[in-house]
Amino acid sequence: MNQELLFGAAYYLEYMPYDRLEQDIYMMQKARMNVVRIAESTWSTLEPIDGEFDFSYIDRVLEAVKKAGMMAIIGTPTYAIPSWLEKKDKDIMLTTNEGQKRYGHRQCMNIMNATFRFYAERIIRKLVLHTANHPCVIGFQIDNETKHYGTASEEVQKQFKEYLMDTFGTTKQLNKTFGLAYWSNSIRDWDDLPDMRGCINGGLSSEFERFLRSMAAQYLKWQAHIVREYKREDQLITHNFDFEWKKFGADIAQDGYSYGVQPDINHYEAAQAVTIAGADIYHPTQDYLTGAEIAFCGDEIRSLKDQNYYVLECQAQAFKNWTPYPDQLRIHAYSHLASGADGIMYWNWHSIHNGYETYWKGLLSHDLATNPTYEEACRLGKEWSNVGRRLLHLKKENKVAIVIDNQSLNALKWFPIDTKLRYNDVVRWMYDSLYEMNIECDVVDVNAFDTSKYRMIVTPALYSASEVTLIKLKKFIASGGVLVSSFKSFVSDEHLSVYSDRQPHILHECFQMSYNQFTEPGKMKLKGKVVNYFAELVKTDGAQVLAYYDHKYWKEYAGITRAEYQNGFAYYIACYTDKAVLKEIYRQALMDAGLESDTAKVCWPIIIRSGKNQENKIIHYVFHYSEKDGVFICPYEEVRDIISKREYKRGSQIELKDWDVIILEEE
Amino acid sequence: MNQELLFGAAYYLEYMPYDRLEQDIYMMQKARMNVVRIAESTWSTLEPIDGEFDFSYIDRVLEAVKKAGMMAIIGTPTYAIPSWLEKKDKDIMLTTNEGQKRYGHRQCMNIMNATFRFYAERIIRKLVLHTANHPCVIGFQIDNETKHYGTASEEVQKQFKEYLMDTFGTTKQLNKTFGLAYWSNSIRDWDDLPDMRGCINGGLSSEFERFLRSMAAQYLKWQAHIVREYKREDQLITHNFDFEWKKFGADIAQDGYSYGVQPDINHYEAAQAVTIAGADIYHPTQDYLTGAEIAFCGDEIRSLKDQNYYVLECQAQAFKNWTPYPDQLRIHAYSHLASGADGIMYWNWHSIHNGYETYWKGLLSHDLATNPTYEEACRLGKEWSNVGRRLLHLKKENKVAIVIDNQSLNALKWFPIDTKLRYNDVVRWMYDSLYEMNIECDVVDVNAFDTSKYRMIVTPALYSASEVTLIKLKKFIASGGVLVSSFKSFVSDEHLSVYSDRQPHILHECFQMSYNQFTEPGKMKLKGKVVNYFAELVKTDGAQVLAYYDHKYWKEYAGITRAEYQNGFAYYIACYTDKAVLKEIYRQALMDAGLESDTAKVCWPIIIRSGKNQENKIIHYVFHYSEKDGVFICPYEEVRDIISKREYKRGSQIELKDWDVIILEEE
Amino acid sequence: MNQELLFGAAYYLEYMPYDRLEQDIYMMQKARMNVVRIAESTWSTLEPIDGEFDFSYIDRVLEAVKKAGMMAIIGTPTYAIPSWLEKKDKDIMLTTNEGQKRYGHRQCMNIMNATFRFYAERIIRKLVLHTANHPCVIGFQIDNETKHYGTASEEVQKQFKEYLMDTFGTTKQLNKTFGLAYWSNSIRDWDDLPDMRGCINGGLSSEFERFLRSMAAQYLKWQAHIVREYKREDQLITHNFDFEWKKFGADIAQDGYSYGVQPDINHYEAAQAVTIAGADIYHPTQDYLTGAEIAFCGDEIRSLKDQNYYVLECQAQAFKNWTPYPDQLRIHAYSHLASGADGIMYWNWHSIHNGYETYWKGLLSHDLATNPTYEEACRLGKEWSNVGRRLLHLKKENKVAIVIDNQSLNALKWFPIDTKLRYNDVVRWMYDSLYEMNIECDVVDVNAFDTSKYRMIVTPALYSASEVTLIKLKKFIASGGVLVSSFKSFVSDEHLSVYSDRQPHILHECFQMSYNQFTEPGKMKLKGKVVNYFAELVKTDGAQVLAYYDHKYWKEYAGITRAEYQNGFAYYIACYTDKAVLKEIYRQALMDAGLESDTAKVCWPIIIRSGKNQENKIIHYVFHYSEKDGVFICPYEEVRDIISKREYKRGSQIELKDWDVIILEEE
Repeated sequence: MNQELLFGAAYYLEYMPYDRLEQDIYMMQKARMNVVRIAESTWSTLEPIDGEFDFSYIDRVLEAVKKAGMMAIIGTPTYAIPSWLEKKDKDIMLTTNEGQKRYGHRQCMNIMNATFRFYAERIIRKLVLHTANHPCVIGFQIDNETKHYGTASEEVQKQFKEYLMDTFGTTKQLNKTFGLAYWSNSIRDWDDLPDMRGCINGGLSSEFERFLRSMAAQYLKWQAHIVREYKREDQLITHNFDFEWKKFGADIAQDGYSYGVQPDINHYEAAQAVTIAGADIYHPTQDYLTGAEIAFCGDEIRSLKDQNYYVLECQAQAFKNWTPYPDQLRIHAYSHLASGADGIMYWNWHSIHNGYETYWKGLLSHDLATNPTYEEACRLGKEWSNVGRRLLHLKKENKVAIVIDNQSLNALKWFPIDTKLRYNDVVRWMYDSLYEMNIECDVVDVNAFDTSKYRMIVTPALYSASEVTLIKLKKFIASGGVLVSSFKSFVSDEHLSVYSDRQPHILHECFQMSYNQFTEPGKMKLKGKVVNYFAELVKTDGAQVLAYYDHKYWKEYAGITRAEYQNGFAYYIACYTDKAVLKEIYRQALMDAGLESDTAKVCWPIIIRSGKNQENKIIHYVFHYSEKDGVFICPYEEVRDIISKREYKRGSQIELKDWDVIILEEE
Repeated sequence: MNQELLFGAAYYLEYMPYDRLEQDIYMMQKARMNVVRIAESTWSTLEPIDGEFDFSYIDRVLEAVKKAGMMAIIGTPTYAIPSWLEKKDKDIMLTTNEGQKRYGHRQCMNIMNATFRFYAERIIRKLVLHTANHPCVIGFQIDNETKHYGTASEEVQKQFKEYLMDTFGTTKQLNKTFGLAYWSNSIRDWDDLPDMRGCINGGLSSEFERFLRSMAAQYLKWQAHIVREYKREDQLITHNFDFEWKKFGADIAQDGYSYGVQPDINHYEAAQAVTIAGADIYHPTQDYLTGAEIAFCGDEIRSLKDQNYYVLECQAQAFKNWTPYPDQLRIHAYSHLASGADGIMYWNWHSIHNGYETYWKGLLSHDLATNPTYEEACRLGKEWSNVGRRLLHLKKENKVAIVIDNQSLNALKWFPIDTKLRYNDVVRWMYDSLYEMNIECDVVDVNAFDTSKYRMIVTPALYSASEVTLIKLKKFIASGGVLVSSFKSFVSDEHLSVYSDRQPHILHECFQMSYNQFTEPGKMKLKGKVVNYFAELVKTDGAQVLAYYDHKYWKEYAGITRAEYQNGFAYYIACYTDKAVLKEIYRQALMDAGLESDTAKVCWPIIIRSGKNQENKIIHYVFHYSEKDGVFICPYEEVRDIISKREYKRGSQIELKDWDVIILEEE
Repeated sequence: MNQELLFGAAYYLEYMPYDRLEQDIYMMQKARMNVVRIAESTWSTLEPIDGEFDFSYIDRVLEAVKKAGMMAIIGTPTYAIPSWLEKKDKDIMLTTNEGQKRYGHRQCMNIMNATFRFYAERIIRKLVLHTANHPCVIGFQIDNETKHYGTASEEVQKQFKEYLMDTFGTTKQLNKTFGLAYWSNSIRDWDDLPDMRGCINGGLSSEFERFLRSMAAQYLKWQAHIVREYKREDQLITHNFDFEWKKFGADIAQDGYSYGVQPDINHYEAAQAVTIAGADIYHPTQDYLTGAEIAFCGDEIRSLKDQNYYVLECQAQAFKNWTPYPDQLRIHAYSHLASGADGIMYWNWHSIHNGYETYWKGLLSHDLATNPTYEEACRLGKEWSNVGRRLLHLKKENKVAIVIDNQSLNALKWFPIDTKLRYNDVVRWMYDSLYEMNIECDVVDVNAFDTSKYRMIVTPALYSASEVTLIKLKKFIASGGVLVSSFKSFVSDEHLSVYSDRQPHILHECFQMSYNQFTEPGKMKLKGKVVNYFAELVKTDGAQVLAYYDHKYWKEYAGITRAEYQNGFAYYIACYTDKAVLKEIYRQALMDAGLESDTAKVCWPIIIRSGKNQENKIIHYVFHYSEKDGVFICPYEEVRDIISKREYKRGSQIELKDWDVIILEEE
């Protein structure tokens, strides 16, 4: 584990228009950077033709880094293949629903192809062998932003068939599980299993995606296994996880941001491959910086191994709409730390002068000179060299968890709530409302959450839920927990078959309500607020109705219910409505969970994130996501701003500038 | 012919999550249902592998039905093929402009492929042989929602070439007919006829579609021919016709409704295959229920054979935006009867628990328990068991007809009036205006309408019209008929060549006007209403101008004209404008046709639909498509509400509730 | 060179529904037309099967034309191939990124395929041999609207590889030039160059497009070379150049207009093939007629050879939204002449009765009778027979030039300024502002502009600029010129590598400013006007700031600067804002350039375009692009309206009707 906050950047000497390694290292040192991340995606430089290896760029960087007393993380280069490799096997290029890709883009290979694996293994072995003993190398990143890429080659489909045979035994069971009789899709012989690319059965198709996610996770484990053969004990293995990318309709690379749960690999499963998780988080900035994406992604990545993590690609200047305002680069950085990051590395050091991501700008602009953003990084580096040790290894013990699920995400692609309301929209609606109320939470995978750690669990649109999960949640409530579930939770089993009895299956006992109809809201309101996209027509069976629908024909139905079940409570929110309504429900649920807190009275744009540092001191980050000035009333007995050294007591007025960060340490 | 109104549902025992046949039949009986429609699209269950047949699901249903004294319609299962069949012939999967489909979806086979036909014939023979003698089986539905699916395989194209050779004799004639010299598309040798999938000649391409529509109709006749070899005399043959599906942009299955003329099969031609026509009609509900789709579709299907018909798939709960308000399921049902339906079968009995149409909900929700919609069906069943016989075999003798045409629909895809004004938009504009005025009409195919039955004929955008049709219409006017034609009528011949003389070809004599320019309306108005999308610049030649355009540059041109021609009248509406203007013209035309009526003074949301029942009594359905209460002044001498038994006289105030239906029988 | 204004139409006897050649020629003569353009795109008529030739349509037209004393231009028919030719070689049909095209459309062949070239050469030789000696034939049009069509067949890619080898010598140099190391795209062996259709490197991909543009130009030179073997000395060679087509979202053919710089062939390079340039210019009409497209396209085409040109396809009636208002056909015609056209030919004589362009209407409507538009052409023909000779060979000596560049256009597809702000939008923003101020300019290619002719040069988004260009512009300023450059000028070299030093590379010395950050404008304003899409954050280094940004965080940065450099001036406009701001800057720049003029005070909708006629008299066209009446104060000492013969002096009030044209000759 690192002994100081990592502060650095991805560095691509290979992409530099002219030799300026010394100058770059000098500029990094000026910013007090201590680490570079190198080699990732540079396969064609490392192995320009089959079997000929050239590590000179790496060697030069490592030498310079050593001289400067810095560290390096080596990335395996497999995320983008060289063009000579494409020609080795006609199945190397990715085949998806849309046909086979042409060579050019990154992540366009079939990661399950044996030829690809042969060459990937060889370059990984050579590279790790070559670098593992270098004193500056603190570890390895395996691949980059790995996902299954929709691979559907013949070979992959053959493996999927074997997986189905193993899992379901007989075609009869397969047919029954997924309801394949519908539209004549049932099969008698396993050999009649058709090409999955034409599949119109949401359950079977989602099973294929689940299989593919597992394959992608196994691919990472395979890389980790190879790396482990060479790496030193003290060297880490990490991976750069990314999130569902929400496009907003701009052009090529300059489009979108890290929005929600990743559909194409299961983070929890894949995280087993690494010793420390890493991530990249790209988010709106300028007038649209809220901190929500940083917090969501951080809460998810930290929860993977219940452990600190790295931001392996921290947003530098990026696109024109993300050129940071003064002080925004700084608030980004501390926001990451406040979620539990143990360091950040900008992507990337310098803006690239050609190629696809020319305008995904790094810390340096194309002129490779100083600029206001780089200068802000320098000021930040100076602060960290002073106070960084106090901020390292921040620990949290959250009592609230949000449960996420790839399978439900997939299900709601097949069976959308509404064109405009996707799974991740519901996740973010429920997450962001907590965030804005200053209720910190863990974001946990449905396959691996420990109910005993939490007092309140939130399930946004947990459409697909196995009976195991349902019983687990039931026990959680019974033993005193508070469950807050949204519409479209617990609808189907793990294979997307809708439960055929009283909804919500099993848990209707706890919620003490049920429904068997739902509707477009039309002119519907709830607690005076508009209801959008979807509303379940709930009839209670013991539950307390917190709100009835306001609608000529649906007014007898409940929109929100609360029920006491054994030692706990179960809240059901049957429709999508204003966050203000949701927050009101959360407040009541938090009371039921015994989680009232002082800081919950403060709300966005002032955000508080807390934890314990290595010295077991309680640290409170106070962020001001606003272009205006503000005031924050200190809710803590006695605290000290670790940067300004100023001290505050309960009730002190703390002035907040625009995009301000204050870090308070409890005495 | 059925002796009572059919009332039932499509029933798929194959799709049930657990065995509950008895319970389902019990619930159907409780709703006084008397029929199930089964087997359609279940080929893979009936023949799980090549040559092995299993009719056990059918047998079980038929036994239960028999025990309950109900009836069954057996569907041939060919609408969706089993996956083993896909592998028999590489040409079985549909090849269209977009390439060859993958197995998975329904309706993705090439219905003209010989291998497909071999296996289809075998399963049909087996199934019909197996069921024809069962006493409960009242008939067969052949295939389902059959269309040509855009099939364009090599074999199909070869047949098309032969069709062209037969039809046009020489390539010289072909070139001339379609103007192929343009852009060097003319051919000398028949073998130079290129792949139709690249064709850019609207006429030739539409000829290909006409050929495909005929092939699809012949496919149905071929199925009917096979069924006839086995069926009993008293057994019917039907087919489930569907309509142009208007998408509104939602996701997968949950998108769109039955909007207008079907482009991909000619209903009239295909209806020759059946003894009684059937249809499915899905339509907006909740706040958007107007009755117009039900009426339009009913008027078209009834006119196919001038005979009563079945609604083989009647909308149950369907999507979230169609969950029926209280009383809407009832008004749907009676609206169908009022168009001449002899029964309705819901699609479907139960909501399916997995697969593509999981959320195309049936009468039962996924919990398979009672629910408000099912309960409304029960009340309806009870009413029908009381009064159904009075409503059976409703006969109409409409004096107004709207002429529809697949070829014009196709033409206006190639040569659109406007991106936002399609053929079916003009059809619905002209139909809906009549409907809202309570003028009932037949909707008749251009290839088979009998002018002698009508006093007024309406042609919406009848772009393509053969000289035979033109002369027929001319004679209709000459002998006292009233023709009301919209812009873009009579522009081209049957091969989409624009007539090269005075427009409208031949009929300009009757209309006594002509035009050779047209325009985007821009700021144009007509009778104070905005003109949208399109306006022809009409100069009269004897006609009376009912309205000039209000526009700086086009004010000398007429927008609407009326002319007396021999014993009749011809109205021309040269632009697309407000329905209020159209209705004003209709009123005048109806007067010219001697069709003034009292009920025409009543208008939507109160809709009146009338006919004679088996006892030759005149029945008036009065519908209230509104969420408000209303009042209807009785226009009939002496009538009796057949449900409430209340009696009314001319001038009585009849109270109408929201979504109300009253059925008045004349004494 | 023609001795009178050409006035005529494209004439397709082949497409006529019946024989009416005599009548057509009679109607042309009535309109005083003197020329027809024939044969273009009629290959299948000329050679109905391989090797059989039939020139009878051409012969008949030429005989009729001769009898009428008219002229003819013969088009080579290669723009659309016959279907028999498709079958000769599987590589004849165009292969692009989207796969291989099917036969049907025009321009769907691979113009670089040897088989195509063999047959194309043969038909060209036959046709030109057959017609060159006819006395009425004044020349030949080679092909039509030629572009590279995105051809990417294996053979084409092989040639591109050879081009790269010739140009860059080694793969090392190739890798470095385009930065191929990025995402492992670098190669060691030339044989590892991947299929360009998957290329994600904007520089290399744009190099491929540059290569393709050259191939297309060479194809035209090849055609011209063949024609030259047969044509008489006095016969011309022309080509019909077209422009970037801006779609506005309508259907098939009826969509879009000539908007800006053509991406898919370099006009300047291709114009070397012809003796006189031709063009087609389709533009909004009715309420949206501004004259801007006619002026832009004319200024570009005239500048190609610094010479008069033909409008080979002049808009007749075209689509419904372009049916000309009274007097609009006339203003179109004079607008062309005012840009330097030596004649116009309508596309086309008659509206075609079938096929793809049925509603791209000609001068005659489908009824082939007289109509208001044809009648306006008759009046125009009469005017030209009176005054045409005074308008022939108009010469201009503009002192302002706008520099355009295919490579920058391409670059900004890869690296968009904004989804809504494309290269041609910036070109039109800068061009249209000059046009509306009545500042005439040349529109010149970056590869061939002569700075010595101009006092002011404007560069809209000249993103890609070689050092040669930059030094040329620097010298232009140094020697007294005024440069006005927009944002995104001079960013990259000719291979799209962003310059890695101070921006703008080299020219920052002249501009005396620099920037290394840019931003989405957000709430930014400049001189009280909204800034949209893009703003560079400029810091001056000697320049005068003409406007600072109005924005909380960017207010210290300049939006517009002006610098004196040696004998000249350099203006930099760092953001996209209102045309009013741009015009204010232009005014100041024009003063610096000594180009103040009286007419510049007049502005759109009154447009003045001037030049010298054959007799060296100065001609001023005055256009009124308005549906209202207006008044124009004569700014000339003594002028005479050559049509009305009225005389005016400085200060005279000249009345202008809607869509008026007045042509003033200086005494």
